[in-house]
Amino acid sequence: MRDKLTISNGVEKIVSLSKRRGFIFPSSEIYGGFSSCYDFGPLGVEMKNNIKKAWWDEMTKKHDDVVGLDASILMSPEVWKASGHLTAGFADELVECRKCHKRFRLDEIVNPKSEIRNPKCPDCGGDLTKPKKFNLMMKTFVGPVEDEASLTYLRPETCQGIYTNFKNVMQTMRLKIPFGIAQIGKAFRNEINPKDFIYRTREFEQMEMQWFCEPKKVDKFFDFWLKQRLNWYYNLGLNKKNLRTYEVPKKELAHYAKRAIDIEYKFPFGWQEIEGIHNRGDWDLSNHSKHSGEDLKYDPSAGSGQEYFPHIIETSVGVDRSLFAFLCDAYQEVKGGRTKTTKSVKEIEVLLKLHKDLAPVKAAVLPLVKNKAEIVKKAKQVYKLLKSDFICQYDETGSIGRRYRRQDEIGTLFCITIDFDSLKKDDVTVRNRDTMKQKRIKINGLTSYINNAIM
Amino acid sequence: MRDKLTISNGVEKIVSLSKRRGFIFPSSEIYGGFSSCYDFGPLGVEMKNNIKKAWWDEMTKKHDDVVGLDASILMSPEVWKASGHLTAGFADELVECRKCHKRFRLDEIVNPKSEIRNPKCPDCGGDLTKPKKFNLMMKTFVGPVEDEASLTYLRPETCQGIYTNFKNVMQTMRLKIPFGIAQIGKAFRNEINPKDFIYRTREFEQMEMQWFCEPKKVDKFFDFWLKQRLNWYYNLGLNKKNLRTYEVPKKELAHYAKRAIDIEYKFPFGWQEIEGIHNRGDWDLSNHSKHSGEDLKYDPSAGSGQEYFPHIIETSVGVDRSLFAFLCDAYQEVKGGRTKTTKSVKEIEVLLKLHKDLAPVKAAVLPLVKNKAEIVKKAKQVYKLLKSDFICQYDETGSIGRRYRRQDEIGTLFCITIDFDSLKKDDVTVRNRDTMKQKRIKINGLTSYINNAIM
Repeated sequence: MRDKLTISNGVEKIVSLSKRRGFIFPSSEIYGGFSSCYDFGPLGVEMKNNIKKAWWDEMTKKHDDVVGLDASILMSPEVWKASGHLTAGFADELVECRKCHKRFRLDEIVNPKSEIRNPKCPDCGGDLTKPKKFNLMMKTFVGPVEDEASLTYLRPETCQGIYTNFKNVMQTMRLKIPFGIAQIGKAFRNEINPKDFIYRTREFEQMEMQWFCEPKKVDKFFDFWLKQRLNWYYNLGLNKKNLRTYEVPKKELAHYAKRAIDIEYKFPFGWQEIEGIHNRGDWDLSNHSKHSGEDLKYDPSAGSGQEYFPHIIETSVGVDRSLFAFLCDAYQEVKGGRTKTTKSVKEIEVLLKLHKDLAPVKAAVLPLVKNKAEIVKKAKQVYKLLKSDFICQYDETGSIGRRYRRQDEIGTLFCITIDFDSLKKDDVTVRNRDTMKQKRIKINGLTSYINNAIM
Repeated sequence: MRDKLTISNGVEKIVSLSKRRGFIFPSSEIYGGFSSCYDFGPLGVEMKNNIKKAWWDEMTKKHDDVVGLDASILMSPEVWKASGHLTAGFADELVECRKCHKRFRLDEIVNPKSEIRNPKCPDCGGDLTKPKKFNLMMKTFVGPVEDEASLTYLRPETCQGIYTNFKNVMQTMRLKIPFGIAQIGKAFRNEINPKDFIYRTREFEQMEMQWFCEPKKVDKFFDFWLKQRLNWYYNLGLNKKNLRTYEVPKKELAHYAKRAIDIEYKFPFGWQEIEGIHNRGDWDLSNHSKHSGEDLKYDPSAGSGQEYFPHIIETSVGVDRSLFAFLCDAYQEVKGGRTKTTKSVKEIEVLLKLHKDLAPVKAAVLPLVKNKAEIVKKAKQVYKLLKSDFICQYDETGSIGRRYRRQDEIGTLFCITIDFDSLKKDDVTVRNRDTMKQKRIKINGLTSYINNAIM
């Protein structure tokens, strides 16, 4: 019988655990942090790499005709003219205080139901300008002269690098429509109001797949990819109750989109998008064709006269957002002493029940006692044996119960204890995080035991 | 008996192969390219991921007490004050034309042996200013107001994110000196003169490990890590003759370095650094301590009064540079018809003899003929079987000899041919890229055959 589980309803516990156990730190923290940027600590980077690998394998290995790409963050500013990002489509409406020159999003300082027609600056009470569009792209200057000619932008989305390489990829890989291009990489948006920990940040990572297909097949593939993407989350253990789809109303669609369905996760702060499935029509290829002068039409067979711009289905995941969702979903507080050594049954134990593919640490090696040289020596041998195959931890500090709890808190799949019997029998106790069952395993079979369990 | 091999002595062949076969494309190529940035195509991204994985596994799995990190690209500008990057230490000397305002590196327009004392603008012949320092960091503005307060920089090196997280990582992972922090990520430098394909670019990727140790052990660890790093290249098949070390003379050392040894590769354009091993002393932690007010000293045992700033050994690899070196090293031109079907023995065949861990495509599946439905069907079954485990290609176009050559050119380890016998015996022919030997293998044993060969 399992203990009663309760799901935390606040995000503070996730933030605290992330910091305390080396998942996520505020960037430049010794300088007071910086602008909603975050750093992934030793456990965070392993978990993030696991998510990226799971997505990459799903896309490029499981699916036919999806190939990878890694385009640069800096691109020609012409790309952003063609894509529509330099025009009004990619901007927030801001008002500026005439006195202190701070800027605010209009919808944040005006309550839609309020009857106040002339809002004042929330900081200094000054008068505000009329709303103006503020572009979300971050500027930089490339080359030795800082002028208009050298101005460009940090990409606000990774997909444009896929569109500009569409023809290169298709030709060099000898692909035929339909096919997809998958990419993982950083993007930057000068969000006015970054918030909710790693949910909305100015620097973030995307995993995007662009599927190029015949115009008439676009609805079929939209449904196909939506289903595929939902299954990906289910297969990685996300609770179905915490995942839903949201069809974006026509009038709220982005400038490039013909249809959009968000995959939303139920965060402690509400339902929020973690992935978008978009029908982008021929917006991207036709605009890049027009602006660049390069013919990006597809010809199903040479000289057929049936050339067309492939239509695009996009699946776009926020890496940080999905990691955040996986963390929230895995976080459990167990009342009543999951580990025997918890003194009071009222004490709360934290369990991070991450999917085996995502857990950053696969195994922890724990000598039963640390004052017995042979046991410590054997434990270190076991650690050496395992760590070349799996990310492992070695821990000899504190009672065995306390050490189990430390590992439960970071979602370690197996706790391996070396005790007095181990010296005689050359075996160890393996404790399974989820079943809590303990099993004696011979040391020379340990690697394959864990391998089988996590395959 | 192997054919005579010749190594190409020009870089053009690598550039051409990279473009033609989907390794590396110029960024924003349909817009005429952009500023020495490059995109990694389907084969390039797989090869790059293989290099990164090989390094990450080496660092975090093979070595004790090296943990990972993934810090953000955008950091507090305070970091760059403390690190010395905002001062003269990280700048090129430039002259500006008073007429056309273009800038040039002084050493590029003045021949050191020339006696001309007043050089003119190479573009318009105008007078030049005196040399001024030009900082190599790329600016950006974060937040809604574009002013001094929101100015920061794209990181010019990844290691500063490690130093600012030194204490967070040590505490949350309960580490003791010595230990290391490994990180892979993008960095940006506004190079005046980017050149040599992907060798010197403005956007690039680094793999850096920072090793924190006692001051008195710093020389021992310098030697240790240098040896480790050299072996990494040797183990990945780099020709020893093409690798050398270069001790940077004292007067040429960077502002932070007490000692530096470059690992250099013999590119077609000469010996060039692909990795640096640096003794950074206590420059980083003591400066960040001073500027941030955070005590970054290490206390070997609480209250011992023996606190010290750990000294740092850095191993810093350019991902793009090392990929370039691996490509050059693997590139061979084979005269005399490696594959039977080459018509003339004088025809040159290209072979990319990449190490098995680095080769982007592990296997290619080739139906002997494409006009026999059962053979094509079986070949597609084999392709489906393999592609969930390995990056594979399916190719049915052209003669079998031509298809072998296509695969040799991208370094594919195994070519798997499905022929008439395969229909009866459920087996295939597996051709080994390096030995050229062909072997019949049962289809149900194919995955494990390849797995064993590439493990």
